[in-house]
Amino acid sequence: MRHSLAGRAESLMQARLLAHLRDEGPLSRVQLADRLGVSRTTIAAEVTRLGDLGLAQEVGPAASRGGRRSTLVDLDPAIRFVGISIGATGMSVGLTDGRLQVVATRTVASDIRSGPEVVMATALEQARELMQAEGVEHALGAGVGVPGPVDFHRGVSVSPPIMPGWDGYPVRDAVARELGCPVVLDNDVNVLAAGEQHSGVARSARDFLFVKIGTGIGCGIVVDGELYRGVDGCAGDIGHIRVEEFGPTCACGNTGCLEAFSGGAALAREALAAARSGRSPVLAELLAKKGDLSAADIGIAVSRGDAQAVQLIRESGHRVGQVLASLVSFFNPGLIVIGGRVTGLGHALLAEIRGVIYRRSLPLATGNLPIVLSELGEEGGVIGAARMISGSVYAPYDGS
Amino acid sequence: MRHSLAGRAESLMQARLLAHLRDEGPLSRVQLADRLGVSRTTIAAEVTRLGDLGLAQEVGPAASRGGRRSTLVDLDPAIRFVGISIGATGMSVGLTDGRLQVVATRTVASDIRSGPEVVMATALEQARELMQAEGVEHALGAGVGVPGPVDFHRGVSVSPPIMPGWDGYPVRDAVARELGCPVVLDNDVNVLAAGEQHSGVARSARDFLFVKIGTGIGCGIVVDGELYRGVDGCAGDIGHIRVEEFGPTCACGNTGCLEAFSGGAALAREALAAARSGRSPVLAELLAKKGDLSAADIGIAVSRGDAQAVQLIRESGHRVGQVLASLVSFFNPGLIVIGGRVTGLGHALLAEIRGVIYRRSLPLATGNLPIVLSELGEEGGVIGAARMISGSVYAPYDGS
Repeated sequence: MRHSLAGRAESLMQARLLAHLRDEGPLSRVQLADRLGVSRTTIAAEVTRLGDLGLAQEVGPAASRGGRRSTLVDLDPAIRFVGISIGATGMSVGLTDGRLQVVATRTVASDIRSGPEVVMATALEQARELMQAEGVEHALGAGVGVPGPVDFHRGVSVSPPIMPGWDGYPVRDAVARELGCPVVLDNDVNVLAAGEQHSGVARSARDFLFVKIGTGIGCGIVVDGELYRGVDGCAGDIGHIRVEEFGPTCACGNTGCLEAFSGGAALAREALAAARSGRSPVLAELLAKKGDLSAADIGIAVSRGDAQAVQLIRESGHRVGQVLASLVSFFNPGLIVIGGRVTGLGHALLAEIRGVIYRRSLPLATGNLPIVLSELGEEGGVIGAARMISGSVYAPYDGS
Repeated sequence: MRHSLAGRAESLMQARLLAHLRDEGPLSRVQLADRLGVSRTTIAAEVTRLGDLGLAQEVGPAASRGGRRSTLVDLDPAIRFVGISIGATGMSVGLTDGRLQVVATRTVASDIRSGPEVVMATALEQARELMQAEGVEHALGAGVGVPGPVDFHRGVSVSPPIMPGWDGYPVRDAVARELGCPVVLDNDVNVLAAGEQHSGVARSARDFLFVKIGTGIGCGIVVDGELYRGVDGCAGDIGHIRVEEFGPTCACGNTGCLEAFSGGAALAREALAAARSGRSPVLAELLAKKGDLSAADIGIAVSRGDAQAVQLIRESGHRVGQVLASLVSFFNPGLIVIGGRVTGLGHALLAEIRGVIYRRSLPLATGNLPIVLSELGEEGGVIGAARMISGSVYAPYDGS
């Protein structure tokens, strides 16, 4: 038999009420009754129940619109979610309130290849320090994103090419045990897409693609406001689409993958080659100073007018644009958001991607298609991870 | 103010009840009460209302499961839908009952380039003849598929590359005026996908792709049991994805499109070249006999052991496979169904497509991915078109 669990919604109506408060902020009882299509009396009763669960409360009279004043309802101000967004070379960990506004966040270096024990210990240490600093005894839930495929239902990583040691590691259960709260695990690209949907440029989009260009390349797919994961949970894995019959060998073992041409690791390799061959004086100077080069150094070289660096970005953007042009013809999205570390390379990359898509896709599909850079930065992953777990905590408890 | 209209469902509950009867056949009141989560008394009242609307009725006692016998409910046996599936070189027109079982159907030659007046006059003539032969005075609704992009909401064709004269033609309203019933218009690929979903190999699939290889090439996308049309209604237009930077010029004006390599028209062109150059003795003989060659002749040549014809099919399948491999990585579908006239080319084509997809896509995405040929044939379009209009007629009337 089902029973209510403090801290989780008990019914679909409560879940819808909480989602409205999360996405729109404090609402009057009248507004909530309108949105849910029920009476104000029902709203009052549900808010009382949600108060007992520590989820929502009345916060005083609403602004008068003439006639009797309504009562304003808000999420409990003590609600805290943990958002953990793990990338290949660093992670962002943060705390949000019930409306997913970031209360505190930090970004630290971390190498995914150190394996799950080391990486997750760092993530949990950061989370605990933030909670302590903010006086948070108990988080209502935690969302975690990792840079590879996950089995969403089991909460484990599966055979991730750039993540040795992570295959089958029970990330979700490990975090749940340590933080003592419900946890959702997804791949980093879906998490970033959820962040864009909540507080980024995709706020009003129902059908959009979020393309992450970092060390790897992946795509979050949102259909009618919901993340689409595919039947095995690996939808959006566009980094391993072949763009050339023959080409550099990819970490996945195949040749000619998009990621092997345009991912951050490929760009760093190209930058090194350009520096060592003398084709790029600016990259050569950066290499001499730092001893190594990353994709971000190409951005620095571009800002200093280095023609070779601009060329590298153009070529990279061209390959990404080729793949996205196909996906636009297939999927006819309403918006494409480009994010990830490589967006530091900025408008040269975007211009090239846009050029290929607008030239190559069906005119009908690109007529009203904005292609924009993400503006969320590191916070995007924290907000997205928090949004994922909020969707689970605010959903009716189903006994699982 | 809303008012009920005879022949359309009045409420969401009625719509759900009708959809269960359409998809599962006659059900007892007890079964319907279970499926809809309401009482048997409510079901009885709704069935009475649906009887007044001429949509459903009680058909006698259900098989006993011990205890008091329940009453069996079925769709009204007089329900008839018209399904019109128009291709580039022919059309299928048919009548179905309320469960979308084909009652009568015929396929006639028809050139889409003759323009909408001529083609639609032929379609309506076929429909009227069928109705007369079957003693059907009034169809409950009609579904229409055309081989190009449509504005689904306005019910008109839009700038179809292979359909001169069709841009903006009000297909839906023209058919509705002539047949005096509600009409839904969609592109032929979506219509065929709906047919597969109702009574083809995709019956139990929630997320699948239906790929039509005919004169043109297109893809129907089903997400969680619903057709996904994209924000401008042109999702699935994969025929114009570029597979080669330089290549034959396509009807759309671009170069290197998939359709320009692997569509039926491209195959016929290649067959002609192989016949004239003497590379294929079998195709040369067919050309001498018929004066022209079509893609279907390649199938004949293959069945007679012609190596050049096998090679043509392999090359065509390879290009289709390349595009589908990318889409599998992106979309992670649970099933791919290959249909359209070119499936007459059969298993050589399928083998090549499968080979490329299984070799090139992410292993996680292909582990449980069946890739199969459609088995519905010409009836698929009739059933799909009928399914589309049934979805609208069985849905609650919204005043539009």
